[in-house]
This record gives sequence, C-alpha cells and structure tokens, in this order.
Amino acid sequence: MTQASKAKRSWTTRRDAKRKRMQQADHLLDGKYVETNQVTQALEMLIHPKDRVVLEGNNQKQASFLSEALADVDVDTVHDLHMIMSSLSRPEHLDIFEKGIANQVDFSFSGPQSLRVSQMIEDGQMQMGNIHTYLELYGRLFIDLIPNVALIAADQADAAGNLYTGANTEETPTIVEATAFREGIVIVQVNERVDELPRVDIPASWIDVIVVANQPYQLEALFTRNPRHITEIQILMGMMTLRGIYEKHQVQSLNHGIGFNTAAIELLLPTYGESLGLRGKICQHWAANPHPTLIPAIESGWIDSIHCFGGERGMEKYIAERPDVFFVGRDGSLRSNRTLCQMAGQYAVDLFIGSTLQMDYAGNSSTVTRGRLAGFGGAPNMGHDPKGRRHSTPAWLDMMNPDETLVRGKKLVVQMMETYQQGNTPVFTERLDAVDVAKESNMDTPPVMIYGEDVTHLVTEEGIAYLYKTDSIAERKEAIAAVAGVTPIGQEQSLKQKERLRSNGIVAYPNDLGIRHSDAKRSLLAAQSVEDLITWSDGLYDPPEQFRSYWS
Amino acid sequence: MTQASKAKRSWTTRRDAKRKRMQQADHLLDGKYVETNQVTQALEMLIHPKDRVVLEGNNQKQASFLSEALADVDVDTVHDLHMIMSSLSRPEHLDIFEKGIANQVDFSFSGPQSLRVSQMIEDGQMQMGNIHTYLELYGRLFIDLIPNVALIAADQADAAGNLYTGANTEETPTIVEATAFREGIVIVQVNERVDELPRVDIPASWIDVIVVANQPYQLEALFTRNPRHITEIQILMGMMTLRGIYEKHQVQSLNHGIGFNTAAIELLLPTYGESLGLRGKICQHWAANPHPTLIPAIESGWIDSIHCFGGERGMEKYIAERPDVFFVGRDGSLRSNRTLCQMAGQYAVDLFIGSTLQMDYAGNSSTVTRGRLAGFGGAPNMGHDPKGRRHSTPAWLDMMNPDETLVRGKKLVVQMMETYQQGNTPVFTERLDAVDVAKESNMDTPPVMIYGEDVTHLVTEEGIAYLYKTDSIAERKEAIAAVAGVTPIGQEQSLKQKERLRSNGIVAYPNDLGIRHSDAKRSLLAAQSVEDLITWSDGLYDPPEQFRSYWS
Repeated sequence: MTQASKAKRSWTTRRDAKRKRMQQADHLLDGKYVETNQVTQALEMLIHPKDRVVLEGNNQKQASFLSEALADVDVDTVHDLHMIMSSLSRPEHLDIFEKGIANQVDFSFSGPQSLRVSQMIEDGQMQMGNIHTYLELYGRLFIDLIPNVALIAADQADAAGNLYTGANTEETPTIVEATAFREGIVIVQVNERVDELPRVDIPASWIDVIVVANQPYQLEALFTRNPRHITEIQILMGMMTLRGIYEKHQVQSLNHGIGFNTAAIELLLPTYGESLGLRGKICQHWAANPHPTLIPAIESGWIDSIHCFGGERGMEKYIAERPDVFFVGRDGSLRSNRTLCQMAGQYAVDLFIGSTLQMDYAGNSSTVTRGRLAGFGGAPNMGHDPKGRRHSTPAWLDMMNPDETLVRGKKLVVQMMETYQQGNTPVFTERLDAVDVAKESNMDTPPVMIYGEDVTHLVTEEGIAYLYKTDSIAERKEAIAAVAGVTPIGQEQSLKQKERLRSNGIVAYPNDLGIRHSDAKRSLLAAQSVEDLITWSDGLYDPPEQFRSYWS
Repeated sequence: MTQASKAKRSWTTRRDAKRKRMQQADHLLDGKYVETNQVTQALEMLIHPKDRVVLEGNNQKQASFLSEALADVDVDTVHDLHMIMSSLSRPEHLDIFEKGIANQVDFSFSGPQSLRVSQMIEDGQMQMGNIHTYLELYGRLFIDLIPNVALIAADQADAAGNLYTGANTEETPTIVEATAFREGIVIVQVNERVDELPRVDIPASWIDVIVVANQPYQLEALFTRNPRHITEIQILMGMMTLRGIYEKHQVQSLNHGIGFNTAAIELLLPTYGESLGLRGKICQHWAANPHPTLIPAIESGWIDSIHCFGGERGMEKYIAERPDVFFVGRDGSLRSNRTLCQMAGQYAVDLFIGSTLQMDYAGNSSTVTRGRLAGFGGAPNMGHDPKGRRHSTPAWLDMMNPDETLVRGKKLVVQMMETYQQGNTPVFTERLDAVDVAKESNMDTPPVMIYGEDVTHLVTEEGIAYLYKTDSIAERKEAIAAVAGVTPIGQEQSLKQKERLRSNGIVAYPNDLGIRHSDAKRSLLAAQSVEDLITWSDGLYDPPEQFRSYWS
C-alpha cells in the first residue's frame, strides 16, 4: 500500500508572498499610510492576478473609495480576480468585471444591480460562484474562500493603524479576521486620520495598509421608512400580526427587517399594542437595525434591548442618549456587528418576519424573479427553523406538535404581504420564477429565499394562515388559498373550505381577531411623519436630507 | 384607545450602575489592575445580587482563578446570581450553587460534572434555565441574556489593558463584546502582565478590571488522542468512512471532533487514502481543533487549511511553523475563534461526523442518559442540515433528491459508533433515555443531540447505512437495523431485508466497499504512537506530560 511521505515544501508561502508584495509597495507607504492619490498604484502592487479579494460592502456601508480605485487598476497587471462581496450594488462593482479585472464572484445580495448581474452572467463576463446568506459567506472566508486581500472601510484610524468603525462596525471585523490571520493583506479606507480614536474597534496589528479616502464611504439610510407612506392596509395587517401572532404566542424577541409592513407594527406598539395591555409582555428584545420607526416604542418603554447589524444614518445622537437600549461603546456611539447579530437573529429570537415578491402554493418564496438575480442577504438565515437550537421560550414551545414523542418547538417565521404586488401581479403563483431562473442561469438549485416548510404564519390583508397547524402540503395550500383574496388560488376556494379552516383555528380573519377594518386608520400610528419621529426623539433623531423633503 | 406616552425615566441606568460599582472598587485598582490577593474583595464590590454573570470556561480553557475567587465571596453580599457558562466542569462551578452565591444557570456542556448537576437540580440547589449549543448561548448574550459581568481569561495584558489570548482566543472576544458594549463590567484574569504584547487580540477599551492570576488558567489537552489506543475495529470503520462517504461524495470540507474514531480517519489519510489516490481531492478544508493526529496528513500535503475553535496543548510550536495551514497572528501563534469556527462549521463545511451514546430506531441520538445531564456543546449546531444555506458543493448536491421540484442539497451528518457501548450496552434503543430525563427534570423538550431526520449516514463496524436515501421512517429503521449487528434491533432483521437494502444502495458492507477485515491493521495508521506524531512533526509537537507516560 502506498504511504504518503513528508512533503518537501515551504510552509510559509502565504507569508512570503505577503512580505514580497508589501516590499514592492513599500516606497508608497509612510508607516501604514498610502497617499490618497496613490491608492490605485498601491493596489496594482498588492493585488495579483487570480487573487481572492473581499470587497466590503453590504446594503448599507460600502468601501466605495477602494471599489472605485480597484476599477481603475491596469487590467494587464491585475486581472481575473475572484471577488467575494456581501453586496453587488454599486456600478463600479460590475465595471470591474466588464473590464476583466475580475471574472468570478461569490456574493450575498445584489438588489440594485440585479438586472445587470443577470445580463453579465448570460454574456459570460461574470462567472457566478454561489449566492449565499451573509453567515455562510462569512463562514466560507475561514474554510474554502480564504481571502488574499481584503478591501474594507472604517471611520477613523490613528497613527499606529488602530481603527474606529463607529456605528457601522457591521461585518468589518469578520472580514479582517479571516484575512489578517491567514497572511492576507488588509487594506482600509478611512474617512479621516486622527491622533486619538474615540474607541478601538479593530486593533492596529490586524491592518496592513491605510488610505484616507477622498470622501467618506458610502452609507445608505436603507432602514428608514417615512411613516407618511404607511397605508391603511399595512396598518390592518400590522394589527392582525400584533394580535394574532405576537400576542397569541407571547413573542418576546424578534427580528424586523426593511419595509413598511413592519414599520407599521413598530408604530402600532405604543397605540394598539398599549390598548391590548401588552407593554412589557411582548417585543422586549430585538435583533434589528436602529429603525427610526422604533423610536416611539423605545420612548414609551416597550423595548429593553436592540442589538444591531449596522447603524442607520440620522440615528447617531439618539442612540448615544439611549445606552440602556442599544449596544454602545465608551465613546457613546453604537457598536453594531453584522455577524453576531445574524447569529443572534438565527438562534436567539422567537420570530422572524419578512416579505417576498412571489410565494408558490406550497409556501415557498423568493425575491428572485425573471431577469432579476437578487440575493437574499440574511433572510434565509433568520427565516428558517434552526435545527441546532435546544433552548425553549414560550413562543417557540407554542409551535410544538404535542403528538410527537420527541416534542420540540419551532421558530416563528412569518411572511407578510399583500395578495397583489404593484402592477396587479398576484404574489401567489403555482411555480416560482426561481425554478426557471435556475435553469437559465445554470444554477445547481433554484434560488428559494424561504422554504414553505419553515413558514409558520402567512399574513395578508385578508387574514392570517397558521401554517404550522397544517398537517400536509395539501392543507398548507388550502390555508394559503384561504388568505389569498381574489388571486387565482384564492378564487378557487369555497366558502365551506374556508369555514373548516377557520373553525380548526388554521385561519383567522380580522373579525376573528376582534379587529374592524374601520379601526385601521393612520391616526393609529404613534408617528405619522418623520417630523413626529423627531418630536418623539426629543430632537435627537436627525434624518438625512432625502427624508426631510417630505415635510413641507 | 390608550396611547402610551413618553416614559419619564433615566436612559443611563446601566452606565450609572457600572460607574457606581467601579467607584466602590476604585481603592483596590491601580489603573485597571487589582492585586492578586484582593480579587475576591473586588468581586464583592463589582458583582451585585441577581446579576447575570458570564463565567468563561469551555471544554478546554477555563477562567479557573476567577471561578475559585467567585466561590470565595461572602454569600451575604453576593447571592442569587444567574450564571451563564459554556461549560459546567470544575468542582467550584457547582460549589457556587451549593453556597447560594448563584441559583440559576444557563449552559452548553456539563460533561465532567453531569452527575452532580443532575443531583443539584433534583435537590433544588440549581435552577436550570436551558441547555444550549454554543452558538445559541452566545446569541442570547446579545438578546435576552445580556450580562452584567463577564469573568474571562487571557494569556497576557499590557499596562493599558490590551489583551493577548494567544492560541486560545476561543469564545473570549464574543463574551467581552456582549458585556463591554452594554455597560457591563469585564473582569479578566491573565497569566502575566507584560510591557509589550506579541499581538492585540482584544483592545484595552473593552476591558475594565485585570488581575494577574496565582497560576495560569486551566487548559485541557482534550483533543489529543494517543494513536496507541486506536483499535482495529476503529480502523475498519475509518476505512469504510473514507471509502464509502468521503470518497464517494467528494467531501472537501469537514469538521472532526473528539474521538478515536475520527483520529483513526485522520491517520488513515496518508496511507489508505493515499492508496486510493485521494490526496488533493478530499478533506482539504477543516473546521477543527488542531488535533495532533492531523499532523501526518498535514505533513504529507493533504490539508490546505484548518480553522480552529481553540488551541491544543503541545501544538503551539508546530502550528507556528505551519502558517500555510493554520490561522496565525503576526506573532506566529494560532488565532482560534470558537464563535466564528462554529459558524463556519455550521454553514461552510460539507460534513459533520460525530458519535453518540444512544440512538433510537428512528436515528435520533443523545448523550444524555439516565442520571447524567450532559450538554452537547457544538454538536447540534454542526450536526444538522442548515436550512439557511444557499451555496452548493459537490458533496452537498450529492444528497439531493432529484424528484423534487425545488431540488436542494443537504449537509452530510455522519454518526459513527460501535454497536455496543462499554459494558455491553447496545447503542441502539427503542426509546432514548433523554425522553425520561426530560420528564424527571421538568425540561420542556427531551434533550436530543442530533435528530434522525438530519443524519445522512450511520457507520458501525458492520457497515454503512445511507440514511439519506431512505424514503420513510420505516425504511430508515430498516437501514439502521441492517448495520446494528447482534443488538436486538439487528437480530430482528432478515437476510432478505438486508439484501434488498444492499441492492438498493441503502446499505454497504465492507466487501461492497472493497475492504477486507484483514486489511484493517494498526500498521495502516500513519502514526501508531505519540512518538510517531512527534517524528512526523520534526520534533515540533511537544505533547503534555500525560501523553508522554505511554511511550516507554
């Protein structure tokens, strides 16, 4: 039998490669600093063809100066990179591929650029690895997608190279850890260099190269929803959700994401929720971004704690004055952490609530539709029942099927959407577009966001379907149909079927929950405008310009 | 309708409480340092009754000086603490409860003290919250178990309070982050105070109080297995696993835990694996501790990367000389991270393989047996199919059921054990003890380690059951029986049944895999003793004393 022998090899090839590259760029460096206008030149020395390069950027914070600099490198020098990106969202992210600087990508989210991504894959300019949730992409940085180079963003650096990430710590430490501790090169853009940092978020010895950017990194106020645009249908759905899900199952910890539906719920807590006597009983603990629409609930004493994925523009001063609720550093500003918040959002909360563009009759949903290759960000991670969970809470236990020998609870995964999308397209469809997209794009599996078996509740303007109570896919389909209104699947169902589901507690309509349509008024929102939010915040909330234009 | 109004309250109660406590202890502090012999006095001022206290300690590293100091506090001053501990493992961990210093616990693992834990719960001295996997316990630190105080351990601190955790970074940064950024008090024991740290693992501004311990923190060499004790049955099972699982499904990334079964596999890679021509094709990427039994596979070029939960005593010098394989800092020593490695082990690897004390006929398994309340550590987290995964690999796709519309892969979850436990107890049982333990201990749900639906493969000395191919619980039971040997369930099965499963590819016996029992010799191990491992390592591996006693 063959026996392998000791390989004769160097065990420091990664370290040696790093040292050589750093030496080549040495004349551009003053300590760790490179001049702003020499960054592209530095990248051409520090990045080699076929490198795996992590470019920081998610749905909020973007290493925008470095991505622009990367798009400017000489393609004869730097080419065929394998990019790893949480988000494909800025135009130059795709220019990098068009120019041949990169040819392969693994990513999580591509909302704003999803049409162009589809086209570039079809044209062969971009070779797609996989779509990931955030956590699996971060996980692979330590396993089989270990980076050669990381391009990241921070607020400030000091002379030694310690970093201050301020409210937007986000995924920066995770990317840096995977790169720095495997002999990769960590290059950071900072908004400014200072003598003393307000606090240290990342130690200097993890960082190789620093450049002061020509303008602050891009930061989107993605989680701000103007209450003025919340509709009465959204208010009705929010009331049903509060009554028929949060109260019914005693939901104490939860995640809310982007959207007017959940913003409505947040603004109903201090009004409708208060009238139900639920303060202190539900919704105390959050894994969520610092949504401005959470301000009235915080101010009226509903919320004990919020751990954040990232920051939110305009919320800085408010958060600094509410350290009992938010995670903050000694400098008073938010400490977010996308990795840890996703972990908490997966394993430690009772409920995830989200929305979708399509749901099939088995309850599977996806935001990937024809010609639009969006990723899912964190939704699949938080929107499933984590089978590795072993602790119990009242809400989790409420999902239990007591007939099983090995009883266990379940995470509450709620899908909440109106039966028709904009343009009069029914949200319910016999077959997800994702099935065809997968075939057309040569994907191994259809890009499903949330699987039907994981959805415990479906909320539409018609009512709530308690899908966790159904005992077959056929019954699940019936329950979906019962809240599908006048969409095709909804029209197929008889009144008799609906009555059976209703009497079994599988479906509830507003009346069943003690809610009248006429109660669902905008006056029920604790804040009806951005101005109201500022008032609730004692003037501490300072909304970005684009949300100010609506006041007058 | 009631509308909540702004609460009249302070929003800095946590910050104020911390400041007050720190002021009370101020006369004991020189900068952040407290004298070694004044630590108990300091704890009596810094910890208040009913506090939530995280005490660092897992199956390897223990904040042993601080746990002893906590057991010495005056119970009239400090009492009724709610302890949060990855591991209940040292005697004084339980003394704290016996004395009334603490009365409530949430934990992950209680191996060495599991009998006493059972008894104390029965006697009402300890009120058990929940058993957790590591990640869900860490997650709750940011949601509904936010700590008031953290007691942690590091190797070194400098004057400013920056910490060096060396090879055993483990869960320390996660615990510190949850505490420091929510106005909690972080107290660290260090082995020594130095002028300059080899590297910074945790920044000073996250730390409040430092004490130089009277002896280094406890550190167990838990993942060291002496090849001398690997049996020929384990070698046979290892060969089958390599051939019938790792090769068959092209397993490229994986987790191995503690145990002689998996140590055998590691030592078969450079011999049996090499003879199969598998080097460079399987097992390149690992989420695992730095097992000494991995040395021959590393040295013969099998392994590209290993990301570690923690360190392993004796492996320090070897790791420092192999930076191409391990994650190391600029000082050359390992950077482990239990949180990130569990995340990677959940989401980014093809395969988890583990063992159990009991498996029921549906494939559910548990290490909780009557009168023994052990937790599971990370097994449930890595030993399930993560439904939030969206990227594909060859092994993952190989688990696909092509008949489904929404095809998807599955994580490989392998259970590997001999049909009889020590003491001639069959491992297969109609009903897990965990069901009765749950009832007796008033647990909400039975403490199952891995659910049958998640187990894709079962390996015994008889053969391999490809459980992922079964189409019903009845067939899963048959497949289990077919490899259950002469245990009761095994004896019930007819030869005809076995033949049917075999011809359907649901079961494979050694012959089917081209393996002869007579091949499974100890001479097939790349290292047959600790001394062999040292030789493979060029003398870099320096085993702890207890493993040296076996050589002579």
